[in-house]
Amino acid sequence: MMVRPINEKCPMSLLRHIELCNDYRPERFLPFRHSADRLGLIRKDNADTLRRFPEFFAVESDGVRFLAEGSFDELSKIIDDVTEQLVSDGVVAKWRYECFAVAPHWGAEPHFKLDRGAVPFFGVKAYGAHLNGIVHEDGALKLWVGRRSPKKAVAPGKLDNLVAGGLGWPHGLFETLIKECGEEASIPEALAKRSVPVGAVSYRMEVKHGLRDDVLFCYDLGCPKDFVPQIGDDELVGFELHDAHEVIALAANGDAFKFNVNLVLIDFGLRHGLITPGDPDYLALTTGIHRPFD
Amino acid sequence: MMVRPINEKCPMSLLRHIELCNDYRPERFLPFRHSADRLGLIRKDNADTLRRFPEFFAVESDGVRFLAEGSFDELSKIIDDVTEQLVSDGVVAKWRYECFAVAPHWGAEPHFKLDRGAVPFFGVKAYGAHLNGIVHEDGALKLWVGRRSPKKAVAPGKLDNLVAGGLGWPHGLFETLIKECGEEASIPEALAKRSVPVGAVSYRMEVKHGLRDDVLFCYDLGCPKDFVPQIGDDELVGFELHDAHEVIALAANGDAFKFNVNLVLIDFGLRHGLITPGDPDYLALTTGIHRPFD
Repeated sequence: MMVRPINEKCPMSLLRHIELCNDYRPERFLPFRHSADRLGLIRKDNADTLRRFPEFFAVESDGVRFLAEGSFDELSKIIDDVTEQLVSDGVVAKWRYECFAVAPHWGAEPHFKLDRGAVPFFGVKAYGAHLNGIVHEDGALKLWVGRRSPKKAVAPGKLDNLVAGGLGWPHGLFETLIKECGEEASIPEALAKRSVPVGAVSYRMEVKHGLRDDVLFCYDLGCPKDFVPQIGDDELVGFELHDAHEVIALAANGDAFKFNVNLVLIDFGLRHGLITPGDPDYLALTTGIHRPFD
Repeated sequence: MMVRPINEKCPMSLLRHIELCNDYRPERFLPFRHSADRLGLIRKDNADTLRRFPEFFAVESDGVRFLAEGSFDELSKIIDDVTEQLVSDGVVAKWRYECFAVAPHWGAEPHFKLDRGAVPFFGVKAYGAHLNGIVHEDGALKLWVGRRSPKKAVAPGKLDNLVAGGLGWPHGLFETLIKECGEEASIPEALAKRSVPVGAVSYRMEVKHGLRDDVLFCYDLGCPKDFVPQIGDDELVGFELHDAHEVIALAANGDAFKFNVNLVLIDFGLRHGLITPGDPDYLALTTGIHRPFD
């Protein structure tokens, strides 16, 4: 792993990742509402696409309303039928065959579920769990990082956390983390269950097919020295153990990590004293990784 | 220490402390500017008081401008002379005989310094360092908490962090922490220096004499089991070691702690897995303790 030295000619720029993950211009989006709740943010070009479903969507200058009423299952069926058309039209990239629940905020009852592929189109909030795999070795703090498959659609070949996964319906957050620990890195359940929730990062970022309005729940797991993660499914193709300071420097000095993983690493660096108040960006980092909700 | 049980009839309400610390109505304040920078926020009644110094302040409908030009020392002298009058008038409570530097943001060059007593009047940003004293005992995480003197002007008799102090000019942040560790809790320098920076919380709160626009830098210190803090100066009058879960429950269920210490404890609870994503307020807490800067 090449790490450029940190000096005045090559300043740390962790803040750049926060700016990239929050590349969002409100004027390009419309609120997506159902009954009394805002559920998402739809880009105006995507909103126009929904005019072909006037029985289900009212596309107006101040927002898009989902007009259907019914049960969770009934609404989910309507959204699936619409998604089928949107995939045909190419405005939703593809079916992911994995569902996300759609609710106005964390802890609220979901109105319906939709395929993960349609999440950016409707700009609904998505949740993930990211795991920092920590090793204390020879007085140094080390971090396990994963290498993403070159076949991934998003951020192919980039570095990643030890484990990361989206919260699919109807699974729980910790359940998802434990499952992904097994699938992605062959972490035994008994070890995975020692993961500790340590906070969350949030960002809002325009992407090709719409918007990512994401929350990543962060977990730390102290790994035994003799534990070595093993490739499981085809999400990650390798693992490396690095000094945690080097990981932060690598994040600061380039784009080796998947875009949103940098936010999880900034949070890690702040919590573990790897980023210190002497950094003039310190406070911009502490607030920047926590985009407020609206 | 009485801890009310956490159940449905008596829900956790850590969020209440964040709301209290952010009791700020922008329409009651005017920006306080010097040259090209905003340095503070002056409450409108306080701004009116400054009309008696037309040679130094322009009080206008969209803000208050400090008109003086000169060196750091020259500007500080003018502000001191004005403060003298404001203390006589009773709009600044009293001289604190401790100076805070006034800069547009963290890491920027200060324009001048002013007495800590005048900080709320001018609504300038103030910085503090707060220390969580941690003990790992019998498999449990414990926290040292301090009891504030009943003679303190702010939050008399309330519980506090193990050590806390404001960042006075011209001292450094870590230097301030180490000094306060010795003065407030008789923590030996060698131990105090093991404190690890773990982030910062920020809030903006109207107070009797104006505004607190505060940043508290948070530190964790792992204390040896045989270490017991001792009363030093007259700031804290006693120390108690409690299970960290109990500390969070105590914060949630009442006002035993000084108002802003609750934010430091929420940050601690989030980082150490004492507050978990199952709490419906979890994300409101992760973002709420980090008021963005403007």
